[in-house]
Amino acid sequence: MSSNWGTELWDQFESLEKHTAWGIEFLEKYTKFLKERSEIEQNYAKQIRNLAKKYQPKRNREDETRYSWCVAFCSSLRQLEVLASQREELSENLSENMQELSRYTSDLKSERKGHFQDGRRAQQHIESSWKQLESSKRRFERDCKEAERAQHASDRLDLDRDGEKARQNAQQKQFNAEESRKEYETSLNQFNQDQVQHYRTLVPVIYQRIQDMEERRIERVSETMRSCAEAERKILPQTSRCLEGLLDAAARIQPRQVVEVYKSGFDPPGDVEFEDYSATMRRSVSESSYLDNRSEGRRHSRKLWPFIRKNKVQSKPGRNPI
Amino acid sequence: MSSNWGTELWDQFESLEKHTAWGIEFLEKYTKFLKERSEIEQNYAKQIRNLAKKYQPKRNREDETRYSWCVAFCSSLRQLEVLASQREELSENLSENMQELSRYTSDLKSERKGHFQDGRRAQQHIESSWKQLESSKRRFERDCKEAERAQHASDRLDLDRDGEKARQNAQQKQFNAEESRKEYETSLNQFNQDQVQHYRTLVPVIYQRIQDMEERRIERVSETMRSCAEAERKILPQTSRCLEGLLDAAARIQPRQVVEVYKSGFDPPGDVEFEDYSATMRRSVSESSYLDNRSEGRRHSRKLWPFIRKNKVQSKPGRNPI
Repeated sequence: MSSNWGTELWDQFESLEKHTAWGIEFLEKYTKFLKERSEIEQNYAKQIRNLAKKYQPKRNREDETRYSWCVAFCSSLRQLEVLASQREELSENLSENMQELSRYTSDLKSERKGHFQDGRRAQQHIESSWKQLESSKRRFERDCKEAERAQHASDRLDLDRDGEKARQNAQQKQFNAEESRKEYETSLNQFNQDQVQHYRTLVPVIYQRIQDMEERRIERVSETMRSCAEAERKILPQTSRCLEGLLDAAARIQPRQVVEVYKSGFDPPGDVEFEDYSATMRRSVSESSYLDNRSEGRRHSRKLWPFIRKNKVQSKPGRNPI
Repeated sequence: MSSNWGTELWDQFESLEKHTAWGIEFLEKYTKFLKERSEIEQNYAKQIRNLAKKYQPKRNREDETRYSWCVAFCSSLRQLEVLASQREELSENLSENMQELSRYTSDLKSERKGHFQDGRRAQQHIESSWKQLESSKRRFERDCKEAERAQHASDRLDLDRDGEKARQNAQQKQFNAEESRKEYETSLNQFNQDQVQHYRTLVPVIYQRIQDMEERRIERVSETMRSCAEAERKILPQTSRCLEGLLDAAARIQPRQVVEVYKSGFDPPGDVEFEDYSATMRRSVSESSYLDNRSEGRRHSRKLWPFIRKNKVQSKPGRNPI
């Protein structure tokens, strides 16, 4: 709604003083609010970032890249880091808004101070003008009474020489009364001029400045509120992309994978053959063991018995030819 | 890529044991990760909620509803509370995923234990079958030698009664060798049967179960990852609506507003009139002050002088009719 404080609130100086003071209190509260919100976001971003760092896999790169679920987890950690940097960006943005608002508030404080000083100066001027009017009015009233009394006195005494003196006195008092009437008229005119000047010019101008100031303040609140909401809204699409990335990573997970890594490429052992010691009686005592036995005509035979505890080495085909 | 562990990894028992152990380690790590992420979200939501609570305006409801910028700030605090509850929802959802995953992991652990116990039982069986084969083979070898030695002895001695004794001994040894050949043949057949059973039936079945278990584990990782990302993505539209609400609130802020609240409805004072004491000489001494003077024919005249410090009361029109 449109309005003009200079004309409509001409008698609300103190109300405006309270109101604008409250407005500045609000700016300071809102600044503090933004500061705390920004700190919350920063703290949140930090925790997210630390979480991502903490869970970086310790195992060798080969495993991370070999297994799709390791790959997915790593990329989900990267997405988390992106989320963290978005929150840092938001925190940064809120903190900038907060700093600007704080600078603006201190400027506004001094501007306001100036306007109310002008208001008080105008008030002092019209008050002194009023005192001047009052005193000259009283002097005129007093002089009129004295003139009246002197007139009575001279009327009572007749044409003797006391009468003459009283008449002169009455004339003098009359003269004084005329003088203070002039002075009273002058300060009356002066006061009425001052009053017109005060209510038609000074108050409207000063109050208009206060009104502009207040309206700028409120617009600033609106702007800051909008700018902070925009900052937060700005990261939503980025966040959404992050989560899409996470979903893709999850979708790319391949449940069937291990074989290629561990496959030895060998076949299970075949039947053990009969050794006829009665046929070759010259033969020396056999020291054969299951392993030696399986060795016949084979390399890497160690790999053919998966259950033997001693066989810790699990070499891949082609790695150790002998 | 498709594969069959029972046939392709038949000799990789230990590799599979290590691999599946590592897989379960990962589940436990991922569970811990979800727990911490959920706690971060909860903590963030709590801070946001407290911030909103802390900044609820202290002033009377009238002021909050009267000024559009107060209204906007209040509604921005409400939006903040909505944001907080969305984050709480996310935290809740992550924590549920975490708990399910943790239950799943302990089930998987015992399932895995069972499979590898079966594997080890099969291994022990084929190992004992092998030992049996080895010992019967050695006995056969030894008996063959003894039979050979006894034959030599009986060949050296001729048809005297010592010769007769040696021949009988040689026949006995020969008989023993025949016996242990039979036993050797039996345990050889037994072992070869066991070995076929082991590599063609037991190992394939057990490894297939381990493979299924591992594939279910990996699918579960993928599912959980997806479900958590979905939970986070689900709140984005709500967050977006919150921010829209915030922007609307900011846009609805009305810079020009105060007048209606403070307007007294009175006009500034007019000119002060001249009081001619000389004309009315009977009149008593005037006690008029600026205020008394302005009072003439007016109510609420107190309101006409905004600058007088004593006038603390700022009553609204129609409030105090007298």
